[in-house]
Amino acid sequence: MTAYERTHGGWTAPTGLPGTLGLSPRFEEVIAGLQQALNTAGAVPSPGPVWYPPVVAQELVERAEYAESFPHLLGTVHALAEGSAPAEGPSSSGVVLAPAACYSVYPSFADRELTESVHADVAGYCYRHEATTELGRFRSFRMREFVMVGDADATVDWRDEWIARCEALFSRLGVKVDVQSATDPFFGPGGRFMRASQLEQSLKYEFVARLSDDDRGTAIASANCHKDHLGARFGITYAGRGTAHSACTAFGLERVTLALIHAHGDDLANWPSLTEAAE
Amino acid sequence: MTAYERTHGGWTAPTGLPGTLGLSPRFEEVIAGLQQALNTAGAVPSPGPVWYPPVVAQELVERAEYAESFPHLLGTVHALAEGSAPAEGPSSSGVVLAPAACYSVYPSFADRELTESVHADVAGYCYRHEATTELGRFRSFRMREFVMVGDADATVDWRDEWIARCEALFSRLGVKVDVQSATDPFFGPGGRFMRASQLEQSLKYEFVARLSDDDRGTAIASANCHKDHLGARFGITYAGRGTAHSACTAFGLERVTLALIHAHGDDLANWPSLTEAAE
Repeated sequence: MTAYERTHGGWTAPTGLPGTLGLSPRFEEVIAGLQQALNTAGAVPSPGPVWYPPVVAQELVERAEYAESFPHLLGTVHALAEGSAPAEGPSSSGVVLAPAACYSVYPSFADRELTESVHADVAGYCYRHEATTELGRFRSFRMREFVMVGDADATVDWRDEWIARCEALFSRLGVKVDVQSATDPFFGPGGRFMRASQLEQSLKYEFVARLSDDDRGTAIASANCHKDHLGARFGITYAGRGTAHSACTAFGLERVTLALIHAHGDDLANWPSLTEAAE
Repeated sequence: MTAYERTHGGWTAPTGLPGTLGLSPRFEEVIAGLQQALNTAGAVPSPGPVWYPPVVAQELVERAEYAESFPHLLGTVHALAEGSAPAEGPSSSGVVLAPAACYSVYPSFADRELTESVHADVAGYCYRHEATTELGRFRSFRMREFVMVGDADATVDWRDEWIARCEALFSRLGVKVDVQSATDPFFGPGGRFMRASQLEQSLKYEFVARLSDDDRGTAIASANCHKDHLGARFGITYAGRGTAHSACTAFGLERVTLALIHAHGDDLANWPSLTEAAE
């Protein structure tokens, strides 16, 4: 008897922690195929993402104002201070769980003037301390993100091209998605007005698919313009034209896999090839 | 310009957090090849590990007595309680960073009598709040672990077979290792005597390799007998013969990769095939 025979439908194994799952070799095979498919989904083929660890420096997340925007989702890591006794209890250690993969990109370009657009392809585990734990509402999950930093108009064009590319990708993979204009409180403590006008400005689009028969729709990917929010936070300017703008396209790898399983069933022989475009 | 062009020697990217690295597509290619090599390294081929998330339930780690053994290495996740204001600050959330991949295996068999040996192949990110951050002293890293739970003598035999298999694997991969009898405070608060006699009993062996010219030797893998410590903690008995024994063989995937880079250089064309045995 092996532990992986104890998985549900051959895909997942229980962990005892709400919002987390053990993932079988077959689930991981799908994720690997999906990563390959994403390597060729953009305008220029990518050798693959830079892979970041599940934890990042607290100062990075503070600079991005994540905690101000999503105070209840941030997980901070506490540990015993060096030389302290266990009875003293753990204290804040300057480490937090990464809330998104792209935060690790901006410091590379911080406090600099860019002379050309920059692009990044990154991935990593993200943590959201979600209160509810329905299927797909992961506390811990992997995100693949394509990021662009540059001129205001160019970031909007880049995001719009990605919307079309995502539609083509999900169509090829046989996953029915609704593209929905969405909003989230992304813009920090001064951002109430931003939030109010976010829908109007169409900054955020989500790709919504069903993960189960009961599911009314879950965002499996998103394409987002940040305007100059992160450029300003990280002191990035662009070619003499002021604060740089940024945009990102993000894929929730476990959610996309659940959407594929829901669409095509448990037998991989009945699935479309994930890597067709890469072959 | 892309972020992955900014990596050191094409392998790693800085993160700003001590003990963590961003890893390039090439580094990930080596890790994927290594995972495949490990699929065929055991007595029976494995389809691959069950992949566990970077966080686990605090009660799981408490049941295993990890915090009593390694109080300064455990990272606990704090978050704002539901409905509380940000000014109240984050509190303990019942979530901790996984200190080892194999902890997720034992609950599957907890409070049960086994009628045959069980084997598991698992992987996941682990966290150790290390105070020092020399190369290879990762706070966050991936561990692949083979686990056996069963009869006392059989676990020792299984562990000894893995020692021979690890030596063969590292020899084929061209990584020079010293196999060293080692000790760690694995056995909890009542374990001082255990620690004192651990070397004598030869419970733990480490595979020590050099990760850089300066490195005097770093453990890249280990093969361990836990005796009945975890069986007792998780209430597992074996075939009418009392508390089950357990053993594990663990590979630090980033460390093995660093040892391969040190042994063979930056050009993958000069490396031995990682997956030869799998082909």
